[in-house]
Amino acid sequence: MAMKRVAASALRAFTSSGNSTSSLLTRRLHASPGSKKIVGVFYDAKEYAAKNPNFLGCTENALGIRQWLESQGHQYIVTSDKEGPHCELEKHIPDLHVLITTPFHPAYVTAERIKKAKNLQLLLTAGIGSDHVDLKAAADAGLTVAEVTGSNVVSVAEDELMRILILVRNFLPGHHQVISGDWNVAGIAYRAYDLEGKTVGTVGAGRIGRLLLQRLKPFNCNLLYHDRIKMDPELENQTGAKFEEDLDKMLPKCDIIVINMPLTEKTRGMFDKDRIAKLKKGVLIVNNARGAIMDTQAVVDGCSSGQIGGYSGDVWNPQPAPKDHPWRYMPNQAMTPHISGTTIDAQIRYAAGVKDMLDRYFKGEDFPPQHYIVKDGELASQYR
Amino acid sequence: MAMKRVAASALRAFTSSGNSTSSLLTRRLHASPGSKKIVGVFYDAKEYAAKNPNFLGCTENALGIRQWLESQGHQYIVTSDKEGPHCELEKHIPDLHVLITTPFHPAYVTAERIKKAKNLQLLLTAGIGSDHVDLKAAADAGLTVAEVTGSNVVSVAEDELMRILILVRNFLPGHHQVISGDWNVAGIAYRAYDLEGKTVGTVGAGRIGRLLLQRLKPFNCNLLYHDRIKMDPELENQTGAKFEEDLDKMLPKCDIIVINMPLTEKTRGMFDKDRIAKLKKGVLIVNNARGAIMDTQAVVDGCSSGQIGGYSGDVWNPQPAPKDHPWRYMPNQAMTPHISGTTIDAQIRYAAGVKDMLDRYFKGEDFPPQHYIVKDGELASQYR
Repeated sequence: MAMKRVAASALRAFTSSGNSTSSLLTRRLHASPGSKKIVGVFYDAKEYAAKNPNFLGCTENALGIRQWLESQGHQYIVTSDKEGPHCELEKHIPDLHVLITTPFHPAYVTAERIKKAKNLQLLLTAGIGSDHVDLKAAADAGLTVAEVTGSNVVSVAEDELMRILILVRNFLPGHHQVISGDWNVAGIAYRAYDLEGKTVGTVGAGRIGRLLLQRLKPFNCNLLYHDRIKMDPELENQTGAKFEEDLDKMLPKCDIIVINMPLTEKTRGMFDKDRIAKLKKGVLIVNNARGAIMDTQAVVDGCSSGQIGGYSGDVWNPQPAPKDHPWRYMPNQAMTPHISGTTIDAQIRYAAGVKDMLDRYFKGEDFPPQHYIVKDGELASQYR
Repeated sequence: MAMKRVAASALRAFTSSGNSTSSLLTRRLHASPGSKKIVGVFYDAKEYAAKNPNFLGCTENALGIRQWLESQGHQYIVTSDKEGPHCELEKHIPDLHVLITTPFHPAYVTAERIKKAKNLQLLLTAGIGSDHVDLKAAADAGLTVAEVTGSNVVSVAEDELMRILILVRNFLPGHHQVISGDWNVAGIAYRAYDLEGKTVGTVGAGRIGRLLLQRLKPFNCNLLYHDRIKMDPELENQTGAKFEEDLDKMLPKCDIIVINMPLTEKTRGMFDKDRIAKLKKGVLIVNNARGAIMDTQAVVDGCSSGQIGGYSGDVWNPQPAPKDHPWRYMPNQAMTPHISGTTIDAQIRYAAGVKDMLDRYFKGEDFPPQHYIVKDGELASQYR
């Protein structure tokens, strides 16, 4: 598609609310005046960086904020080199003030790194999902952690619906026939279905889960959701989705399960061998949330035995997925690298959100409240 | 997915209306009493036939009507061998009464074959789309041609939305990275977009086009449609789609174009070099209608130059597509064999529709009026 039209719909939300005079309780309280050292860890785009002026989320284009930061006297270091004791990130840990990371190429901010980062005040996630940060250690150290809530929820919900359709309709075997010179309709059709009439359950119905349910509504499915809290009745009516208080009562009803929860100590490994064994035979699973919510080997075994009829997602444990990650080679998978939340449209939105928060930080202003993941030593409710 | 649950939602519609006593104007007028010779041309399923009891659309399972036909004294021949002067189909042309064909493995019913088929009265399409029949020759010969209108419209509309998302979000390059051991988010993201906010135009807003528009509604796109006739205002309001009377004024506005027209002499080759040159640079095209609506080479050239940003569909010219069909090897394609209308759910519905029409034919009753493609020497309006 043409690229220029995207910019038109950018730069919304993210600048509302939070303009109060109350201070941020950071390690050093306010942003002290003067030059700050800001480090961003993104993925490298190399030859792709110049192919699209809106491709902001890579090291080369660095969220499009370099000139703005440097013109105010701040230092802005950007790298993709994030692993091991001799990486570029490690060099800057001792004296950086702000660290910008992203779920698509996660810099793991461990307790040890937090301890070394004596000047660190603010951790910003360009995107959604801050589980690559040791949030408890960040809270204990008095740091503020914030993400650009809402910046890519539409992107992820759209992607989930695409993956549901790819699995239900058995798209990939057909495409592989095409590129390998074959034509065998039967080899696709015997396990290709319509989505209509099937039971779809989302585990988690936060911002992304709700957008997914809205998009599923015209498909005439039987929609179920499990969450800590029931949706308000208006949204429940609008989507026709039915609340299931007991997760393990919902799951065996589902033809298709979509994971829409953050990764926390409670959700880690939640879909293990035992839970997968209790699902409907041939269930389809879509997981764009976090790879570590699944037991890696249990998913491989499920796909191999046919207990799982198809598995699609863009999240892995760890990321980047190593060449020998077994999800690359299991049957009936429709995996991609971590991509759903980093469309060009999403990049424009999360770059704008990061810039807005930096601006507020420099001015000593609060962020929009929904962006906080750790504030005043407390974790946001979804991470507790 | 589990297979048994599908049957529950099958067998609807298709049995309404049309129960009048008026006769079919066929070559021999009524079905004359006594044994009929019925020939069905389907794709072979081989080892897949036994994998799913609802896999009805293959030669092995033969729409599930063999026992029913034979118990009434009719002869039922089924084959996939449909090409050339010595094929199995050709042997039965001189004395068959009814020929059942399908768009997924089309038996081309030429004027010459019609001339040879002295006993032929009825041509039934198991599915939708009877362009593989020379409809004018059928009309001139006084034959009745009917398809199972509505049997797979939901199946195709769902599939179109899947293909839109696959192209917009640049799914396939990511999946190919996974299976080839790579990880390069930038190589996907630089041309991955959200569907939200984009302009989608459907060329044709009949049964399938309307179902697509309904499913697109929650994606917050700018929806356009071109058709011979404006939709009724209620449906227009419901989908928010805007009518475009002039096709060539609509097309250059579209980021995504979906083809939803039958193949007729007017639509054959409609998207040629000149028309493609006038589209928005990088336009995405989804075509599950018929391959011959496109100029084959113009699509290849468009994809190679970047004028077309992505092309996806399941229809080819001819079918099966030969091993050297250039659409198999052009860049940015997301093609499959002809599959969207032959999901298990669709097979159950079109098998039921064919059985219902045969039953009415034996009894000398009319079909549901929307099923007729050629009746009393006249073509249905969409084929004129």
